[in-house]
Amino acid sequence: MTETRDAGTLSHRANDESTQPSSPSVTFGPDRPLELDSGARIEDLRIAYQTYGRLNDDCSNAVLICHALTGDQHVANTNPVTGKPGWWSLMVGPGKPIDTDRFFVICTNVVGGCMGSTGPASINPATGRPYGLDLPVITVGDMVRAQAMLLDHLGIETLFSVAGGSLGGMQVLQWAAAYPERVFSALPIATAARHTSQNIAFHEVGRQAVMADPDWRHGRYLEEGVNPSKGLAVARMAAHVTYLSDEALHRKFGRNLQDRDSLTFGFDADFQIESYLRHQGSSFVERFDANSYLYLTRAMDYFDLAETHDGRLVNAFLGTSTRFCVASFTSDWLFPTVENKAVVRALNGAGASVSFVEIATDRGHDAFLLDEPELFATIRGFLSAAADARGLAA
Amino acid sequence: MTETRDAGTLSHRANDESTQPSSPSVTFGPDRPLELDSGARIEDLRIAYQTYGRLNDDCSNAVLICHALTGDQHVANTNPVTGKPGWWSLMVGPGKPIDTDRFFVICTNVVGGCMGSTGPASINPATGRPYGLDLPVITVGDMVRAQAMLLDHLGIETLFSVAGGSLGGMQVLQWAAAYPERVFSALPIATAARHTSQNIAFHEVGRQAVMADPDWRHGRYLEEGVNPSKGLAVARMAAHVTYLSDEALHRKFGRNLQDRDSLTFGFDADFQIESYLRHQGSSFVERFDANSYLYLTRAMDYFDLAETHDGRLVNAFLGTSTRFCVASFTSDWLFPTVENKAVVRALNGAGASVSFVEIATDRGHDAFLLDEPELFATIRGFLSAAADARGLAA
Repeated sequence: MTETRDAGTLSHRANDESTQPSSPSVTFGPDRPLELDSGARIEDLRIAYQTYGRLNDDCSNAVLICHALTGDQHVANTNPVTGKPGWWSLMVGPGKPIDTDRFFVICTNVVGGCMGSTGPASINPATGRPYGLDLPVITVGDMVRAQAMLLDHLGIETLFSVAGGSLGGMQVLQWAAAYPERVFSALPIATAARHTSQNIAFHEVGRQAVMADPDWRHGRYLEEGVNPSKGLAVARMAAHVTYLSDEALHRKFGRNLQDRDSLTFGFDADFQIESYLRHQGSSFVERFDANSYLYLTRAMDYFDLAETHDGRLVNAFLGTSTRFCVASFTSDWLFPTVENKAVVRALNGAGASVSFVEIATDRGHDAFLLDEPELFATIRGFLSAAADARGLAA
Repeated sequence: MTETRDAGTLSHRANDESTQPSSPSVTFGPDRPLELDSGARIEDLRIAYQTYGRLNDDCSNAVLICHALTGDQHVANTNPVTGKPGWWSLMVGPGKPIDTDRFFVICTNVVGGCMGSTGPASINPATGRPYGLDLPVITVGDMVRAQAMLLDHLGIETLFSVAGGSLGGMQVLQWAAAYPERVFSALPIATAARHTSQNIAFHEVGRQAVMADPDWRHGRYLEEGVNPSKGLAVARMAAHVTYLSDEALHRKFGRNLQDRDSLTFGFDADFQIESYLRHQGSSFVERFDANSYLYLTRAMDYFDLAETHDGRLVNAFLGTSTRFCVASFTSDWLFPTVENKAVVRALNGAGASVSFVEIATDRGHDAFLLDEPELFATIRGFLSAAADARGLAA
């Protein structure tokens, strides 16, 4: 990876990354279109990706990591937009649970994203302008199909493992269902085989917040030189509350006041939680494209693996020989254990090899991104056993 | 009560009600200011209220009902703005659990509201323009103090009972703490003695959505002839999700599609839950003032009955002779049973007479407004026993 951008505001950097990613990328020509579930196609697909470690000679040690809604391909390197460590630096690296001394790790920016893969901020070759809402709606199936095209391009036939949390976990399940012969092992974490009504509801609130911002301009804000940052910040704030648990919020913030001794009887951020949320909103808009937020939330809402398999989730996994490890968190109310267990039940019904762990933590959905020793130990152990079974060198 | 408004758009009606309520109202002059917890005062306080039933000769059968965040004084009559039945028509009326054949029921629009009591849409006598953000921040304590002024005016020294859910329940607790000698019995439902960090977080999202709307104009939208309806609709949508349970949403909507056979691969309301939420948002803005939403959410955030009693909730109730009945709902995650039990524990610690019931329902926080037979039976039984103890005629 090279970082050649000049210093600038973060939002300029973010815009640069969406059109000229600093990570490696592959562009497929019109001869290799991405066929979408909607029936539409993308004829100039670009996939921006990042890799860590070394692919072994028989190409058997590749681990695909799938990122969540607001993640990107910068799993374990300094993020070129934020300057912060990669979002799964604790999990991926030399000697880490997903050990880059042993595995060749790949992560792609999902189609629909804003870090270099084709998304609504990309230039539409038909018009020379950013796609905006002219980009067809993307599904989790489309994201995975695009990743498969990249793996074909890289000469990787089989993945040793595919891992991810939340939307990343949906991609893991989609991989296992769509390409069972290409997935030796799979790690869906804090995820679900479908978005629930409540999940859709919170996403719809976020989309309405974006679209209510007059600077959204029906998705054409990039051309018009504006940005619906207020609406996107509200969307992020609403979503962020759902990523945390009530207990964690209580422990971390409670009713503590922010830099003051008493209530001010006004609408400033009297409470630490208010100040924290405002910061989450304002920092998010510096790095994320509002239209991408619409597309990726929509992809999650549309995901329903049973629905696309004749109404029975077990059908998605019939005959699979993939080894699964499913993990959920006790305080995750967005992707609760019951949804993860539904996946486990379907896998059991399909006769799959599956282990399941519910990890006790008060950190809510975000726990999959955090320092959770039991999660690390689980993944380390699962991958180690799978690697032995696969005959990978230690 | 008289309804003299002409037909018009609902929002005109709502605006009329805020300045010229069709329900009875009392205006207190500068000689009777409302002293606020902030240290400020309101010198022209108006309280709009509604009554049902008949006050008995010794004024001993008055029940004060306290409304929730978006409620009003129209408990059991047709709402003059929406034309719908009053918000607690199931609970209050002849032969209902709160029986207007036996009790004299009063409900005031809270200070800070938008249905005729002094609120941010009222005219500021100092400027001749709507208060907007010049209205001092209102607390639950202020709301209750204003209600006490109205009761004084009506010659009601003692309440037979005070009842309410959510913000209404906070007022009930505040009544019992501030005026124990005036409250014979108290029914705090689906409430808490403090707003939690998560509660504050969701409210802050809503406020930011309102304030992000350029038509909010720093609170001066009424003078400028606009309305931050998009922002307020987003706030309502976000809040509405928190009033329902995941189970109820699943039962009611699941992933059902809205008036279509298959996904449209777009951003219209494909799912019923999306259509439902959008309707909740758009109908709310026709009846509610955006600044009132800021003020009343702030009042809830500020509420912390332990904090205002030397840090110990039990202190709020020491020596009380009020009889309490506390009710919570199993699927209410906004004001969960644990918060209601904290109230019960404090009451027990204070040696108060208290009964507690947790009602099994999947309807979430909104259950207190709905047809919940166990709630009805609980309230009927509690009030009946209390009325006998009080010596009220059957």
